[in-house]
Amino acid sequence: MSELLYWLDMFGIIVFALSGALMAGRYQLDPFGVVVLSAVTAIGGGTMRDVILQTPVFWLANPVYLYLILATAALTIIFIRSPRRIPKRFLLVSDAFGLALFAVIGTEKALSLGAAVPVAVVMGMMTGVAGGMLRDVLCNVIPMILRQEIYATAAILGGALYALLNYLEVPQHIAIILAILSALVLRLAAIYWRVSLPAFAIIDVESKEKDLK
Amino acid sequence: MSELLYWLDMFGIIVFALSGALMAGRYQLDPFGVVVLSAVTAIGGGTMRDVILQTPVFWLANPVYLYLILATAALTIIFIRSPRRIPKRFLLVSDAFGLALFAVIGTEKALSLGAAVPVAVVMGMMTGVAGGMLRDVLCNVIPMILRQEIYATAAILGGALYALLNYLEVPQHIAIILAILSALVLRLAAIYWRVSLPAFAIIDVESKEKDLK
Amino acid sequence: MSELLYWLDMFGIIVFALSGALMAGRYQLDPFGVVVLSAVTAIGGGTMRDVILQTPVFWLANPVYLYLILATAALTIIFIRSPRRIPKRFLLVSDAFGLALFAVIGTEKALSLGAAVPVAVVMGMMTGVAGGMLRDVLCNVIPMILRQEIYATAAILGGALYALLNYLEVPQHIAIILAILSALVLRLAAIYWRVSLPAFAIIDVESKEKDLK
Repeated sequence: MSELLYWLDMFGIIVFALSGALMAGRYQLDPFGVVVLSAVTAIGGGTMRDVILQTPVFWLANPVYLYLILATAALTIIFIRSPRRIPKRFLLVSDAFGLALFAVIGTEKALSLGAAVPVAVVMGMMTGVAGGMLRDVLCNVIPMILRQEIYATAAILGGALYALLNYLEVPQHIAIILAILSALVLRLAAIYWRVSLPAFAIIDVESKEKDLK
Repeated sequence: MSELLYWLDMFGIIVFALSGALMAGRYQLDPFGVVVLSAVTAIGGGTMRDVILQTPVFWLANPVYLYLILATAALTIIFIRSPRRIPKRFLLVSDAFGLALFAVIGTEKALSLGAAVPVAVVMGMMTGVAGGMLRDVLCNVIPMILRQEIYATAAILGGALYALLNYLEVPQHIAIILAILSALVLRLAAIYWRVSLPAFAIIDVESKEKDLK
Repeated sequence: MSELLYWLDMFGIIVFALSGALMAGRYQLDPFGVVVLSAVTAIGGGTMRDVILQTPVFWLANPVYLYLILATAALTIIFIRSPRRIPKRFLLVSDAFGLALFAVIGTEKALSLGAAVPVAVVMGMMTGVAGGMLRDVLCNVIPMILRQEIYATAAILGGALYALLNYLEVPQHIAIILAILSALVLRLAAIYWRVSLPAFAIIDVESKEKDLK
């Protein structure tokens, strides 16, 4: 993995750990619960990717990832000592950074291991969305990815653009930066303007009776 | 894998992808969210099986699976353009087909990799139920498997019958068809007549106070 | 694995299977649903550990684990024939035993496979908490680990104490017993006196509007 990718990966770990810690604060967890939720969010997606690709899981060989998560969770707790009012947008924005970074990094890793392009884009999307999905599922919230604000879409754009630029033999540094920026801008724009793709809606005929069961 | 198994597998992917797309429509996801939920439902169980058996994950080597999911999700969205009233039974029936197919295919794969019979039946059940469980958990719904309508039971029947017929050296084609039909008929009958096994019920003494916390 | 570890592992399987069955009874599942929830609780954490460490999954080679789960679930159902009032504390205590046992066993396994200490402690915690987390997520309950009663904390204490005693070359039997007891006592004390670490709380500014969406 190139130097650039390594630092971007670390940055992704920090922002996702932060988003996990912020979510933990909203549910008033104890400090170790905060660390667990930070860790699940930060390394859940990459762990799933590596397990499915059956390549050694990235954080086993390098404890720096765990230390970064611990430090991020600790600093978040220390910095926000008393209950504070923090705009929900902080959580959304740190999540968006992690999503964009990990979608591209995951696609790159899958391609470098020889995966076909559609498989690599899926692995990238999984790297980007799975950590946040686990975080939301653990907090009993319907995952962000299932809401209407262009979430999976941004991850797929980032991964697919990277695969395309890679295929066109654009220098890797440029390809990575462009792909991350495209995913990030799309996701932030969707948050800011509350843009959504048109929803696919089914009205469930029997739902009322079923829900009473 | 035999020709028959291959086509049944593809059919299972399609019906589970459909059940994921229908669920997505009930929660009004955006088009890429529909694709994600279809994919999780269709390949979640088999992925879990292959990861636990530590054999290469089936959809990595063959992108046809991903294309099938994409096509199924796209066709579902196109076919149901405006919000429609779709009976919940559609979702239940497509889910039942996927359950029966994957329970038997999963058992077969585990046996062919040398697993003991009880382990193989468990792997089959997991292949059949895990995709739908992930779908339901992501939508914040208690999974079908935890309701009372003979769900895990049908998957175990299918897998165990296949293992038995396989042990009796019944020709594989016949064993597969019989096992799938048995699981499917049992599950559809349970849906149709709302048959359940007697529930195992504990009344929780302290639940009221706890729930208030 | 030493004789002692083997029997403690079996005991952990039984108490976690029991906690899964008790939870199943509270949600009135059918008998096979009870078995599934028992199995997920009992082997979910260890399965995740082995998959991430990419070592053969422990229950594949030894069907005794599945038989134990089946027997525990069956005995629970038979013993509690009619709906009964069972104090919620039963569930919490069996869960605490499983947590303490598996946290230490998981740490030991990771260390013996050559993992670094922080990684091993994390793998131990995962072994201890993941089964219960899966159980709670499937029942659509916010996992115990996310409540404030020193849950992850107890698992980390057990694993870290084991790693320390192991480093100090304390005989393995003594190290295991001490580490398990420390985690168990801490968790039971937290349940009994409702002790919690101070919660980390964020008040979410926009949550009201968001929740209405």
